[in-house]
Amino acid sequence: MVKVNLKPHEVGVFAIGGLGEIGKNTYGIEYQNEIIIVDAGIKFPEDDLLGIDYVIPDYSYIVDNIDRVKALVITHGHEDHIGGIPFLLKQANIPVYAGPLALALIRGKLEEHGLLRQAKLHEINHNSELVFKHLKVTFFRTTHSIPEPLGIVIHTPQGKVVCTGDFKFDFTPVGEPADLHRMAALGEDGVLLLLSDSTNATVPTFTESEQVVGKSILNIIENIQGRIIFASFASNIFRLQQAAEAAVKTGRKIVVFGRSMEKAIVNGIELGYIKVPKGTIIEPNEIKNYHASEILIMCTGSQGESMAALSRIANGMHRHVVLQPGDTVMFSSSPIPGNTTSVNKLINTIQEAGVEVIHGKINNIHTSGHGGQQEQKLMIRLMKPKFFMPVHGEYRMQKVHAGLAVDCGVPKENTFIMENGDVLAVTKDSARLAGKFNAQDVYVDGNRIGEIGVAVLRDRRDLSEDGVVLAVATVDFKTKMVLAGPDILSRGFIYMRESGDLIRESQRLLFNTIRVALKNKDANIQSVNGAIINALKPFLYEKTEREPIIIPMVLTPNN
Amino acid sequence: MVKVNLKPHEVGVFAIGGLGEIGKNTYGIEYQNEIIIVDAGIKFPEDDLLGIDYVIPDYSYIVDNIDRVKALVITHGHEDHIGGIPFLLKQANIPVYAGPLALALIRGKLEEHGLLRQAKLHEINHNSELVFKHLKVTFFRTTHSIPEPLGIVIHTPQGKVVCTGDFKFDFTPVGEPADLHRMAALGEDGVLLLLSDSTNATVPTFTESEQVVGKSILNIIENIQGRIIFASFASNIFRLQQAAEAAVKTGRKIVVFGRSMEKAIVNGIELGYIKVPKGTIIEPNEIKNYHASEILIMCTGSQGESMAALSRIANGMHRHVVLQPGDTVMFSSSPIPGNTTSVNKLINTIQEAGVEVIHGKINNIHTSGHGGQQEQKLMIRLMKPKFFMPVHGEYRMQKVHAGLAVDCGVPKENTFIMENGDVLAVTKDSARLAGKFNAQDVYVDGNRIGEIGVAVLRDRRDLSEDGVVLAVATVDFKTKMVLAGPDILSRGFIYMRESGDLIRESQRLLFNTIRVALKNKDANIQSVNGAIINALKPFLYEKTEREPIIIPMVLTPNN
Repeated sequence: MVKVNLKPHEVGVFAIGGLGEIGKNTYGIEYQNEIIIVDAGIKFPEDDLLGIDYVIPDYSYIVDNIDRVKALVITHGHEDHIGGIPFLLKQANIPVYAGPLALALIRGKLEEHGLLRQAKLHEINHNSELVFKHLKVTFFRTTHSIPEPLGIVIHTPQGKVVCTGDFKFDFTPVGEPADLHRMAALGEDGVLLLLSDSTNATVPTFTESEQVVGKSILNIIENIQGRIIFASFASNIFRLQQAAEAAVKTGRKIVVFGRSMEKAIVNGIELGYIKVPKGTIIEPNEIKNYHASEILIMCTGSQGESMAALSRIANGMHRHVVLQPGDTVMFSSSPIPGNTTSVNKLINTIQEAGVEVIHGKINNIHTSGHGGQQEQKLMIRLMKPKFFMPVHGEYRMQKVHAGLAVDCGVPKENTFIMENGDVLAVTKDSARLAGKFNAQDVYVDGNRIGEIGVAVLRDRRDLSEDGVVLAVATVDFKTKMVLAGPDILSRGFIYMRESGDLIRESQRLLFNTIRVALKNKDANIQSVNGAIINALKPFLYEKTEREPIIIPMVLTPNN
Repeated sequence: MVKVNLKPHEVGVFAIGGLGEIGKNTYGIEYQNEIIIVDAGIKFPEDDLLGIDYVIPDYSYIVDNIDRVKALVITHGHEDHIGGIPFLLKQANIPVYAGPLALALIRGKLEEHGLLRQAKLHEINHNSELVFKHLKVTFFRTTHSIPEPLGIVIHTPQGKVVCTGDFKFDFTPVGEPADLHRMAALGEDGVLLLLSDSTNATVPTFTESEQVVGKSILNIIENIQGRIIFASFASNIFRLQQAAEAAVKTGRKIVVFGRSMEKAIVNGIELGYIKVPKGTIIEPNEIKNYHASEILIMCTGSQGESMAALSRIANGMHRHVVLQPGDTVMFSSSPIPGNTTSVNKLINTIQEAGVEVIHGKINNIHTSGHGGQQEQKLMIRLMKPKFFMPVHGEYRMQKVHAGLAVDCGVPKENTFIMENGDVLAVTKDSARLAGKFNAQDVYVDGNRIGEIGVAVLRDRRDLSEDGVVLAVATVDFKTKMVLAGPDILSRGFIYMRESGDLIRESQRLLFNTIRVALKNKDANIQSVNGAIINALKPFLYEKTEREPIIIPMVLTPNN
């Protein structure tokens, strides 16, 4: 499967994940005996991946080249950039370099997986330099919807490869501003290849600043008399910080619900992002000591996730909070495409309880973490790359983004819309596709990796359509006797017990079917199983117009 | 369950479906011994209704009051207004009144269900009058994304109840204009209660005219050299008409793919909406006789439906068309919220084949069939209703729509945000909630109604999460012997055969478990089944961290 044909002087650049998709960002830059990996994310599964918790990439290329892999450097602490680290380190314990917040989040993950002790973790910041034999790694600050986002520069003998990481250009950010001048200097000095964030390539508008959002949140909170339930992404510490500041300004105590939100507040306070007077954050059981106008609840679940705090509150299943008229729920978020339906359902449920809902788009209380077309063009103009590779996006986004690069002066033949596993070979004068390695999706289900394949998923899909019908009998092939059964049982099919004589008729049919099948002198388990399916399938379809999975199990006597 | 307490002089108004949801619109207006039903639609199931094809309302109230039901009158031919008719007529064969296009679509449905012969179908138009003893029904033309949309007026002894049906105000429609003056006259004369379409109640903008869309389509088609694949909703005959006219103007032949699209074209031509010169519509096998610039393919699948023509074309599974560079796919549609992910996936697949994609929003080649807030207010101002009931929408839409009515002068206490089954009792001076009847969702799966309940769906969900493991044995409770098995089989679980000794270890565990269970002198099938689950569940969880459904089947010898 691995057909990579790099010449010694060529720099190899590839994605193990992140191309043609939103998620599992994992990029690699290699030169001779050195490989630097940038990020190791997960992807959340689409609806048709039944029972799958995460999708990670196939890490074989890293494992097969473990001796050459010098470092995993992390741009920022979002799941699609760090979520895969435990699964990767289990297979290849490479040194990890990340900023303080990302590192805190990574530590939490590794602890859960029992990997913290052996992991080689190193804290970096935007002024760090990692020096290897041929390669050097430096960083620059960008702005994004989580603190401390870093752009990464891999200095190679052929020139600089720049990974933007996720970015927007927020000129009035809540945290540190972007290193505009360092980016400009990089461009002046010469960038060989730019790997840039394509997420919002189809969005023509310039993304709104986080501070503007903060002001809207304060304005809205100032005008609310009752209790406020504030739902947002836990990772957006700037947002939590601004909501917390608004709470303090309006004399409200803060209660925090949801595991990731609790962790985010702890991290935010420890790292100095969230500064609130002592006693501002109170325990759930203290809510009753305060008037509704003195409470702001921060919680997870802004995407309508059924088990998150907000859904449990809305459905009356939360231990500490029951919605009451006068409450206001603020969604400081916007639904990710696949979640629109569940978010709308949640809004309906909340409003039916007589509670006000204020959500993102209309009220300016949410903004994206990714820059639109103008910002993507600004990045390209600043970096002036010789070669351009749109990353972090579906094909339709990569395509538009490549077009923007062409608009900004990159020759079309110097833009590369690649797939996961494609290897680009770059020198200071040239770039060519040098081959492809296997970088398929790997499914993680219940923390176990790769045991679920396409066939199992197809079975799950079939089971979820019309359910399953089991037909069991014990047969003695010597005496040609049906010793026990046939018996019938179903799950996820119609209510068979209520369907009149369906079970009895099926049993009668199968009894005759098995007896006829046994008359064949070559009869065996397979042939009787086959006969059962052939008889039961059309019978059930005729009776019910459904096609459950039929599982026959013919047993033979133990001796 | 039915607790409706109408006084003899009161008019009852209710929804059997359509409130708190988008779909299965089925409204009723009753006075003494007469009931008029307006529309009988289906709803498409959400993702968590595994294996369910449609959702219809519980028609019990109609069936229980069949002697009083005088007519089912239809506003227009969309599925959420006519899709339930076959299921309703099976239970209650009431006379149906509909315009020519809706009637053609209804006939097709009834034919499929073998109900056409006994159905009592009557063609109406906007000038029709249906006169019953106390009630009279008249109509007015509106504009919508399908020809011949009708507003319905039920004249009662207490005043007029107006159902808008689905509407927008298209002042330059492709078909007939709305009866603005008839609506104004109704308002002048006095409207007791208005039931108005809430779909776009959260959209502040005025919906674009269908003719504007037609012009954009023509402009775009004029500038395309290669083959065009035009995907849209089959029911929007105006859109098909405009695309067909653009094809004719630019010298293209039309090929039609997808069953509902073929039917729509046939209906459109028969009813005089689509007028193309003879020979314009060609057969699939004639495509090869024409240059790419002379072909326009009209097809279904604009919502990314996996079995529709466009998906099959994109995935290389269509008998007649293979995508080729130079082709352009036009999505004259916008994705319904739940479909965004599948539409984006489809766009990626098409673009990866080197094919251009032009879609709705950006290029002005789609517009909604429902009016935004300005149009909803115009309707309320024209009708000047005493009482107002927002229908055809989720709770959040109903709520905003009720607010718009208040803004337009309807007293807040005269607006009624109701649920399916709620009955409003109206007189010329008063309105009050008079009770509630059962109007729950009924699931249709494989054309069979109501056999799938909550328990079966829960089983399907569980099966789809971690699959199923079967454990079977034949046991003689008299001799306490395990005659056959235990044997193990799984579906949708991990690959058990590949998981080393998992099957053998499970069998060994169960053999011992069954023997121990048999030692109890009261051992029976239930107790052994229980022992199997109690042993296998923790064992499999420990080995795999998964919780499949475990189905034990203990058989006894036949005698």
